[in-house]
Amino acid sequence: MATGHPNAALIGRQGGRRDLATPALVLDIRAFEHNLATMAARTRAAGLALRPHAKTHKCRAIAARQLAAGAVGICTAKLGEAEALAATPGLESLLITSPVLGALAPPRLAALAGRLPELLVAVDSEAGLALLAEAAALAGTAIGAVVDIDPGIHRTGVADAGAAVALARRAAATPGIAFAGLQCYAGHAQHIEDHGLRRDIAAMALAPMAEAAAELRALGLPPRLMTGGGTGTSDLEAGLGVLNELQAGSYVFMDVEYDAIALTAEGAGPFRPALFVDARVISANAADFVTVDAGFKAFATDGPKPKAPGGADYAFMGDEHGAVFAPLALGETVALQVPHCDPTVNLHDVIHVVDGDTLVDIWPVEGRGRGY
Amino acid sequence: MATGHPNAALIGRQGGRRDLATPALVLDIRAFEHNLATMAARTRAAGLALRPHAKTHKCRAIAARQLAAGAVGICTAKLGEAEALAATPGLESLLITSPVLGALAPPRLAALAGRLPELLVAVDSEAGLALLAEAAALAGTAIGAVVDIDPGIHRTGVADAGAAVALARRAAATPGIAFAGLQCYAGHAQHIEDHGLRRDIAAMALAPMAEAAAELRALGLPPRLMTGGGTGTSDLEAGLGVLNELQAGSYVFMDVEYDAIALTAEGAGPFRPALFVDARVISANAADFVTVDAGFKAFATDGPKPKAPGGADYAFMGDEHGAVFAPLALGETVALQVPHCDPTVNLHDVIHVVDGDTLVDIWPVEGRGRGY
Repeated sequence: MATGHPNAALIGRQGGRRDLATPALVLDIRAFEHNLATMAARTRAAGLALRPHAKTHKCRAIAARQLAAGAVGICTAKLGEAEALAATPGLESLLITSPVLGALAPPRLAALAGRLPELLVAVDSEAGLALLAEAAALAGTAIGAVVDIDPGIHRTGVADAGAAVALARRAAATPGIAFAGLQCYAGHAQHIEDHGLRRDIAAMALAPMAEAAAELRALGLPPRLMTGGGTGTSDLEAGLGVLNELQAGSYVFMDVEYDAIALTAEGAGPFRPALFVDARVISANAADFVTVDAGFKAFATDGPKPKAPGGADYAFMGDEHGAVFAPLALGETVALQVPHCDPTVNLHDVIHVVDGDTLVDIWPVEGRGRGY
Repeated sequence: MATGHPNAALIGRQGGRRDLATPALVLDIRAFEHNLATMAARTRAAGLALRPHAKTHKCRAIAARQLAAGAVGICTAKLGEAEALAATPGLESLLITSPVLGALAPPRLAALAGRLPELLVAVDSEAGLALLAEAAALAGTAIGAVVDIDPGIHRTGVADAGAAVALARRAAATPGIAFAGLQCYAGHAQHIEDHGLRRDIAAMALAPMAEAAAELRALGLPPRLMTGGGTGTSDLEAGLGVLNELQAGSYVFMDVEYDAIALTAEGAGPFRPALFVDARVISANAADFVTVDAGFKAFATDGPKPKAPGGADYAFMGDEHGAVFAPLALGETVALQVPHCDPTVNLHDVIHVVDGDTLVDIWPVEGRGRGY
């Protein structure tokens, strides 16, 4: 529980949700628990390990529940996020999925390695590997290197299977480094609306990873981890047969973006919208809409718009405000589904956990803003 | 100084800026001080009081410097932001520029009123006024009501001069409430590229405010504060002759958005770019660009793109990454000018103050995320 927050006074009070100081990031605990259990069952049935990506939620309370539901560890995108989440109860293995560089990184990685049974870091360059070796030497303990392979979008990762094999061999030969496996995250496939096309794009993206793994096995350097994937390809990875570990993140919350695509071949998504921003009507002098207290600073603006209940339209009205085209009363609150979950969570210091109209808890977002 | 931040170790070290853990929000202290002095001189010469909008920076260290340079007080957009900035040294008057509603607000406003020589709050409804009166009664001290007038964008504010006069009279007759003046913020005028059109739109927006003020003077209820305006109209307000107080915020930082328009009739802007995100190259396997560690979570995405030095292009590559089309080396940092300053600052917990390549201080952004 986050103390010192004005909304803490409302915890446990029947109907207290309507009195929340707003904008408030709100998690529907029942939908969240459904999503948690659904992904755990989906990956278990598929024979995949689940290593949820914590860049979505940046929250120890959520990471701990993912681990309790069977996750083998977590991913973070950045070192700062890893530092914030290292104290998650039950955490045994943490993978930083982006390469880490910079003069301050080795001592920070070393300290982190000392706090965790297993620290894994993505690498896609010799400089990145050298930095990990420096950190491992400082720590006096091994750090696992996961060789990152470009899925074709040229964001991070080595260019092809040959480069992956070369970097993996180099990792295996570097003192202090344990070569732990391969990573390939087909981010561009996750939100493709057509389920079949999504499978085909993901398959194409994973081909160099499969090739590198075969070569490494032949060389006696089998990659223990074959990690990647997301919520959008979570029902496809088993069939594709390349990954043995899924990095899905968004499934715990869902958002307007993921709601727009089918997450099963049958077209019905198994996950439920769980994350909202409750906003309050603070001005009601216009004819067709009311003004609420949530704008660019409360919602991510890189994707679609927030979704109001009952199909009512929402429009951004600047940093602090939005318009909701519904006959709401002054002072009333409205639950707006978040447009893109990860960068929306990153705007909020706490998550208000609700069961219907009752606020049951407030969870700090410990990794918020810790992109560094 | 923010303790516990990994970058604190770099303060005062020559050239330490290049070693910053990134992404890091960076303030060029010389450009900032130039901007501070320039706006102070501009408003002094124009006979306008300056009440900078702290929704831009949310930072006590900056608010204190604005007050030391002659500001009469500060604005905040929200109550939570006001709570965070109330402890600014030298602060005598604080105006919350959006209406405040919700069951938790009266005790919070009362506590705030008890901490400040003067608390002012925008109102645009009788319900909002009643809530202020409740807070004043709890506080046992007066709260100033500033009647907000819609500049024509229907975001907040009463609809016209008649409604403003009616609400002002009601405020003056309400126990615990001091009628303090009128507010009209022509947000839609601030970024109009053509200087003459910007003046005309601002003049049109302020007409109902001028009309209401004349009526109130005739009624013996002269508005002490005529508050509004922004960086974009800061050289125009004196000529328009309606406001006596300017709420400019962005001038301290500037951004890509404001750089695109002329802030004087002559076309040359007097303010300098002062705010950047230093990002680091973490992957360099592509032919035409490098990947840096700053994406949707490091920059506002509601406006233009971040600007790289020397005209190099920047492209968002998701939550955590961006592409910079320049031949930068792995591990190297690059200073990217922020696209839209207010919501960019709201992503970062601290501001790194630099003088050239030396980190001279780290200022906490106390109001970050406090939109509630």
